[in-house]
Amino acid sequence: MYRLGELAGRLDLEFSGDAQQEIAGLATLAAAGSADLALMVSVKYLSQLTQTRAAAVILAPEFVDQCPTDCLISDTPYLVFARASQLFDRSPQPLSGVHSSAVVAPDAQVHASASVGPNAVIEAGAVLAAGTVVGANVYLGHNSHLGVGTRVFPSAVLYHDVHVGENCVIHSQAVLGADGFGFAPGPAGWEKICQLGGVRIGDRVEIGACTTVDRGALEHTVIEDGVIIDNQVHIAHNCRIGKNTAIAGCTGLAGSTIIGANCTLAGGVGVVGHVEICDNVHVTGMTMVTGSITRPGSYSSGTPMASTSDWKRSAVRFSQLESIQKRLAALERQP
Amino acid sequence: MYRLGELAGRLDLEFSGDAQQEIAGLATLAAAGSADLALMVSVKYLSQLTQTRAAAVILAPEFVDQCPTDCLISDTPYLVFARASQLFDRSPQPLSGVHSSAVVAPDAQVHASASVGPNAVIEAGAVLAAGTVVGANVYLGHNSHLGVGTRVFPSAVLYHDVHVGENCVIHSQAVLGADGFGFAPGPAGWEKICQLGGVRIGDRVEIGACTTVDRGALEHTVIEDGVIIDNQVHIAHNCRIGKNTAIAGCTGLAGSTIIGANCTLAGGVGVVGHVEICDNVHVTGMTMVTGSITRPGSYSSGTPMASTSDWKRSAVRFSQLESIQKRLAALERQP
Amino acid sequence: MYRLGELAGRLDLEFSGDAQQEIAGLATLAAAGSADLALMVSVKYLSQLTQTRAAAVILAPEFVDQCPTDCLISDTPYLVFARASQLFDRSPQPLSGVHSSAVVAPDAQVHASASVGPNAVIEAGAVLAAGTVVGANVYLGHNSHLGVGTRVFPSAVLYHDVHVGENCVIHSQAVLGADGFGFAPGPAGWEKICQLGGVRIGDRVEIGACTTVDRGALEHTVIEDGVIIDNQVHIAHNCRIGKNTAIAGCTGLAGSTIIGANCTLAGGVGVVGHVEICDNVHVTGMTMVTGSITRPGSYSSGTPMASTSDWKRSAVRFSQLESIQKRLAALERQP
Repeated sequence: MYRLGELAGRLDLEFSGDAQQEIAGLATLAAAGSADLALMVSVKYLSQLTQTRAAAVILAPEFVDQCPTDCLISDTPYLVFARASQLFDRSPQPLSGVHSSAVVAPDAQVHASASVGPNAVIEAGAVLAAGTVVGANVYLGHNSHLGVGTRVFPSAVLYHDVHVGENCVIHSQAVLGADGFGFAPGPAGWEKICQLGGVRIGDRVEIGACTTVDRGALEHTVIEDGVIIDNQVHIAHNCRIGKNTAIAGCTGLAGSTIIGANCTLAGGVGVVGHVEICDNVHVTGMTMVTGSITRPGSYSSGTPMASTSDWKRSAVRFSQLESIQKRLAALERQP
Repeated sequence: MYRLGELAGRLDLEFSGDAQQEIAGLATLAAAGSADLALMVSVKYLSQLTQTRAAAVILAPEFVDQCPTDCLISDTPYLVFARASQLFDRSPQPLSGVHSSAVVAPDAQVHASASVGPNAVIEAGAVLAAGTVVGANVYLGHNSHLGVGTRVFPSAVLYHDVHVGENCVIHSQAVLGADGFGFAPGPAGWEKICQLGGVRIGDRVEIGACTTVDRGALEHTVIEDGVIIDNQVHIAHNCRIGKNTAIAGCTGLAGSTIIGANCTLAGGVGVVGHVEICDNVHVTGMTMVTGSITRPGSYSSGTPMASTSDWKRSAVRFSQLESIQKRLAALERQP
Repeated sequence: MYRLGELAGRLDLEFSGDAQQEIAGLATLAAAGSADLALMVSVKYLSQLTQTRAAAVILAPEFVDQCPTDCLISDTPYLVFARASQLFDRSPQPLSGVHSSAVVAPDAQVHASASVGPNAVIEAGAVLAAGTVVGANVYLGHNSHLGVGTRVFPSAVLYHDVHVGENCVIHSQAVLGADGFGFAPGPAGWEKICQLGGVRIGDRVEIGACTTVDRGALEHTVIEDGVIIDNQVHIAHNCRIGKNTAIAGCTGLAGSTIIGANCTLAGGVGVVGHVEICDNVHVTGMTMVTGSITRPGSYSSGTPMASTSDWKRSAVRFSQLESIQKRLAALERQP
């Protein structure tokens, strides 16, 4: 529980209203009760603002006059909301120490302030820096490193030689450092190319549940500082993801893809291998990226949704496009 | 092993043939042997029916005359097959009790009839109702709840404050309650929005292997009674899935998607965030749902498969559609 | 560390240069240093070859004259590279024996040369042949079998009655044998069809991280010898994948799909159920396979990527294709 004035101080904001107002939690404008702080993120929610029963609202200066209650005023209300969410976070925070059921190799280096959960397994040469949190059933392979403050949620797996920087979050069932998909065709079938590289992950990276980042074939797969990756994403061997790029769920990158900084890939995107995407590119959902992108901007592919019967007609015509074009050209040639 | 008459009784069906006929298992019409019960699901399999060596066949009344052997007669043979499969299920059923290697918090409530497998980890405040089965290496977070008869297969993970109703099945590597993908852009990069909501799952829900259901940002992510979800599906934060909706493998829903009751999403579908799909909608495989759907029916997107050489020609013309349309309009304007 | 002459001997190759040259590792042409062996895989890298500082290069005979350093000569340099990678593999190899924290059923058969990692759980009737390696936190269900030399990485799960052949690799979080997605519609909602079949996997199969292979409904799901499957792939119940077929990441196969031998499915492909794909078919990335394929060759679907503004115009016209075709036909009918 915070007082409004205290919150304004912590968030470094101006406020309007009663500094002593108690704020017990965060809620949406529609659901907020008399001890909740709500968020007004855009003009779309103006009617909700005017009817809110929230104790206070985070909003931009232009909406202060229409706010029926106290407010925290910011030009970047969404960012303020993010910071406020961190103040109201009540998620369980494990104590320091190694659980008695964990299996930790004698020469692993586990900082005294680190927390290692039940049944976690930590192999030789692993390094856990100060404040790291390793959840139950996590596996940390040989010579893996976790930087200061990094948290790995239950059942995630790091293979050997995977380095994760500081203040990262790795969610459950994520797999970092499994073998890249490298095989050469041989007379008796596929011959495995051992994946001799590792994985290098920068600081403040978040990796979602069931996401996989494969180890490199010869060099490392690299994820730079500040990258955020959603669930069920696949990053193949030798990819490099630039700073602060965001990748939404179910996206897959083939091998040796290089993505610049500050890009956003929406959900379900696929990127073929060995292409390069420059900084500041946005790719819309389910786009098939079939080549390099050298200019910032937004890119797309696919067809719009329609009723299945309408779609079937369009789909048939898609297959006839070459002949449609030829018929058109023939008409154009007529005198 | 059952007698045919006994099976008919348990399934509440009429039968034709020898009530004493022994039935040892289920099999396809083509593979069934002299102690097997087979299924005739549609007229497509008529030739297989006439040649089957099954002991008996589940079929609709109109096929009785063509059946060379005993039969169980039903207007809904596929439904009968489902129920029969439950009678013949021989999958291992663990004994009640907590395995000595499991790590259970002192104040977790584990019903005496519950089964907790080896190396499972159960945190404080968790509640396991009667008849629950928690597999090996499962993690149940703080204040998670499993309703009566719910089974969680090995290595699945429930974060804190995830409630699962009665008679649900959660398959291996599923992750319920990982953080939703919420970040606000800030001057120093992405700022995390702590995900303060939980997950609420109704009764008789099945969730497939490697499927993820993220926790809500402020309110809960909700999956209603009777929903069935296949493997590798991603349900983002604050989605709501209506009763008895079915979602096939590799489908991804972005945040705050609301799906009605009795919908079916085929495999590989993607749904953008903040849209609403009404009841009784069917979406075909790999469709990109880019907006709300307000009328029941079937919806699709994509292009049909072709040989790569044919496809390339159509794909090039797709990029020229605007100019094709303009050329056509120009011809139409000619006198 | 190897001498060049020794490497040539082990790889059964001709070489040019100093047989005593020390080779400490593998590297790319661009990054290789004076003790590295590099790979020249195609003429594309000719300029890198001429400038390499590698100790030696694996290359085809036609490039020997342009190589500034020693070389290993082969008509199949990529295959040689694969074999060389196996010689330089330094990944941790666990010792034989069962870790004291593993939970192994008394009647499981674990070969004396097998390695079972910490907190692994092995159920009754499981069989681990000679040289098998079971990683930490792995779950092997009742009557599961691992053939000689097969390795299962940490946290993978095999349900009961899943048989894996010899010299296979199963990566972390893979799930073999979860229930197929089988339900019949009933008056009270979906009725579960118990999945009574198992999974049968041949020899030399590799299965990627977070990949799922469901058990069959009545018969087994089958993956034949030499198949390689990348991460996050979903193989539904009763699929059959033919010998040496390769399936890249994020691909999903619906139930009862039959795929021939020597096929390659690129990433993000979706295949509808109950279709058959003949041998030697290649499917390009993100293709939607909507029917059977009866002739070898390459197949595709989708639309090419464009800037979002260009794409939107094409997408709108796609929806109008039926009317475009009709307008064209009308013009053609004009005298």
